[in-house]
Amino acid sequence: MDLEEKQIRKIYVYRGRILNVRNDDAQLSNGKIVSREVVEHIGGVCVLPVTENGDVIFVKQYRYPYEETILELPAGKLDPGEEPFHGAVRELHEETGVVGDTYYELGADYPSPGYTDEVIHLYAATGLKDVGQKLDEDEFLDVVKIPYEKALEMCYTGELTDSKTLILLLKYKLMEQSGRLTPMEESK
Amino acid sequence: MDLEEKQIRKIYVYRGRILNVRNDDAQLSNGKIVSREVVEHIGGVCVLPVTENGDVIFVKQYRYPYEETILELPAGKLDPGEEPFHGAVRELHEETGVVGDTYYELGADYPSPGYTDEVIHLYAATGLKDVGQKLDEDEFLDVVKIPYEKALEMCYTGELTDSKTLILLLKYKLMEQSGRLTPMEESK
Repeated sequence: MDLEEKQIRKIYVYRGRILNVRNDDAQLSNGKIVSREVVEHIGGVCVLPVTENGDVIFVKQYRYPYEETILELPAGKLDPGEEPFHGAVRELHEETGVVGDTYYELGADYPSPGYTDEVIHLYAATGLKDVGQKLDEDEFLDVVKIPYEKALEMCYTGELTDSKTLILLLKYKLMEQSGRLTPMEESK
Repeated sequence: MDLEEKQIRKIYVYRGRILNVRNDDAQLSNGKIVSREVVEHIGGVCVLPVTENGDVIFVKQYRYPYEETILELPAGKLDPGEEPFHGAVRELHEETGVVGDTYYELGADYPSPGYTDEVIHLYAATGLKDVGQKLDEDEFLDVVKIPYEKALEMCYTGELTDSKTLILLLKYKLMEQSGRLTPMEESK
């Protein structure tokens, strides 16, 4: 089946601070013209930091869209033109105060491909060293350490809800189990 | 630390077909007023269908925001007022033509909590029976069966990118391993 949709007209309906929104005209494979709403986002990074004694470092943050304070792995938006691995090391440092001596590349994820073009690049870090937090002005968060097995339990019970956090905790665990984790070259 | 942000003014900047966008004024715990961009979405469902012989049923779809055809588990938006489990059974049936005799509730995820309020409800289905696909007009997709172990491999290599798909495949596997899967009452 021909699944492709052709962009006919790119129409911006909102240009904002962290996102732009389009309501394009697109052509389906049956020739019909339809609307396609797209949220444009610069892309993000997320890091699973695992300490020597098997704790995971989380950040606890208020998430305005849900009116809720939730636990997530350290993460953030890329700066314009920034290389994803650089962004990951930067966000880990800024939010939790640690840097790793070994990093693992764990792919990328598309958070909600029906309407956003955001790509979240995923990493893990071990061999952590505390060098001091560097929060942005107006960035408020608590750093929380949780044993890995307890964090997995919180995936199963539904206590953890953030998609990038769930993917990293579950993927790292399964890849470790099956001997599939390989450190990145630049971090060795 | 007081992490909460107070909504001061709710300001709609776009009202669309599958999403609305706000650029609210919010007050931080330090008293400062900031902008908060929010994408409002009705919420979604996703189902991991596992066949008798251990295959996973995927759908292959063009995703306009990425200009890419990707593999995802069957999923979709909730109808207004629809109960999530009902939506999950409906989408599984419409997209793949199967219904399950046993369902598992696997929590929910927040795809990108920095800017969207979408909640994706997650399920698995076994004991599948083919009753015929019911695609929406203008919905184009291919149904693809992949052995579970091969699908996990595609999580590890980065071939699968959709967040809800990754979470379900990884979470179901780990919960099965640790004897934590319990069928839903209504599906027994």
